[in-house]
Amino acid sequence: MRMPESEDALATLSGHYFQLFEDYLGDLLDTRGDGVPPRLWDSMAYSLRAGGKRLRPILCLAAAERSGVGPQKALPMAAAIEFVHTASLIHDDMPCMDDDDLRRGKPTNHRAFGEALALIAGDALLIWAFGYALTHLPRGGVSFEKALKAVAALAEASGPSGMCGGQVLDTDSESQSADDGFVYSVASAKTGALIRASVVTGALLGDISDTDLRCYYDYGMHLGLAFQIVDDILDVTRTKDELGKTPHKDEAQGKNTFVSVYGLDGAKRLAAESSEEACRAIEELFPEGDLLIDLAKSLADRKS
Amino acid sequence: MRMPESEDALATLSGHYFQLFEDYLGDLLDTRGDGVPPRLWDSMAYSLRAGGKRLRPILCLAAAERSGVGPQKALPMAAAIEFVHTASLIHDDMPCMDDDDLRRGKPTNHRAFGEALALIAGDALLIWAFGYALTHLPRGGVSFEKALKAVAALAEASGPSGMCGGQVLDTDSESQSADDGFVYSVASAKTGALIRASVVTGALLGDISDTDLRCYYDYGMHLGLAFQIVDDILDVTRTKDELGKTPHKDEAQGKNTFVSVYGLDGAKRLAAESSEEACRAIEELFPEGDLLIDLAKSLADRKS
Repeated sequence: MRMPESEDALATLSGHYFQLFEDYLGDLLDTRGDGVPPRLWDSMAYSLRAGGKRLRPILCLAAAERSGVGPQKALPMAAAIEFVHTASLIHDDMPCMDDDDLRRGKPTNHRAFGEALALIAGDALLIWAFGYALTHLPRGGVSFEKALKAVAALAEASGPSGMCGGQVLDTDSESQSADDGFVYSVASAKTGALIRASVVTGALLGDISDTDLRCYYDYGMHLGLAFQIVDDILDVTRTKDELGKTPHKDEAQGKNTFVSVYGLDGAKRLAAESSEEACRAIEELFPEGDLLIDLAKSLADRKS
Repeated sequence: MRMPESEDALATLSGHYFQLFEDYLGDLLDTRGDGVPPRLWDSMAYSLRAGGKRLRPILCLAAAERSGVGPQKALPMAAAIEFVHTASLIHDDMPCMDDDDLRRGKPTNHRAFGEALALIAGDALLIWAFGYALTHLPRGGVSFEKALKAVAALAEASGPSGMCGGQVLDTDSESQSADDGFVYSVASAKTGALIRASVVTGALLGDISDTDLRCYYDYGMHLGLAFQIVDDILDVTRTKDELGKTPHKDEAQGKNTFVSVYGLDGAKRLAAESSEEACRAIEELFPEGDLLIDLAKSLADRKS
């Protein structure tokens, strides 16, 4: 499979973080788990190995290193975030949700393994995320307090008031609102919370002041917003081959998106503004040319 | 709705633990969550309020108190376990799994809220479980180390090698085995792991020796087995009204159960033996008449 342009660009940009995570995840998946039924492991590993940008793990490792924590120590946290993200994709693709056949250029999990196994694989990945990070962060030398707080932040971001809440706002017809701010609320919870948590959990593993943590938080918030706006733009401008998933789904499902609310040009302007806000949030912490700043710039221009 | 006999018996037997948990959960659900979409909260609360025996929270609170931890301090752990259990029931009932319309005498979650919301409500409950316990145990005075280890034990028990793994063995046609021990493997993972974790996580919150922890572990393991064997028996012997859910599902789905493998009388004998083993595991820790011992005896005789 050809690597979509933005994955390539992100991999190049983030250099050793991308490769460090890929190697770690690959080794972990090769263990096949202790006491895990083979079919369940295959289903979980299928979606984890399907590639993707690894944006969230890269953000976590980068934030950890900038808070004085070697990326090796932060890898269990980065893995946990990717498990949660992958679980959300598996469940999102299911027939009762987006009913999608294609993800990252391959059949979706339920198309490959059946609905029941896809449902359980998603659950297992969610639970494993928390168990894995809680067990392996302290083994790598992270204090119990820091490990607990970082993992709790991941749960907060992905749970009922975060990612899951956003999925409900995005898909549940009775939860729709005509408010101007609704599309922001959806994006902030559905996509933004986990991207924000990727940065914040990495930072929480280190010694960081409340002021600096706030900068990371704001950076993650604006970055997450930019990411979702670009997602909405790509849904209307790109082909299936370019995206690795089915395009034009938002319009078909009658979803409120940044494009439907602000138009294509309006959405492009908002994406650029959010990217700039993200850079501004950390400009006093890092020099121009820092990976986190370049990431924010490149994500607003991504092509898939 | 009439309370099934065994819920009544368990509530009476476990006295203040049952009521303590009901009051705690009721107050928690009345908060309606901060930033949680109302429809998502309603769906989660619907299944959490549907009653049930509250066996797992009771076991957790009882084990905690016997390890020197006041049950008030252990309540967030007990709640987390009930969240995980409830999430598993919501997802188990979905059309792609058991396709059940009735749970605890009420429409199943997806019958009441639709499949998409039921799917997300289950995910949200799983994530909330870990976030809630990690946040609220330390606030109640549990050390970060103890909170982290107890919550990690819950994840281990419910994840890919525990409850989720057991669900796959139970439902995935390609994961079946003709081995004599298969029905034990399924029961141990699908039902046993979470019941065992209820006792073990409670004990882990206190100061407990490895030897005593092993006793709790063995108690929970045998109790969980007894519970699943009785479940298999009730599936063939009770009516829908008595169970509050659809009976005779195992045979219709061609599942291997303790009844199908050992016959009804054989299963009854195994349930009694497992109950006795559970009592024996903790007989040196607690006097005859202790709640944990009476619970093991009563669960082998339960009627729903």
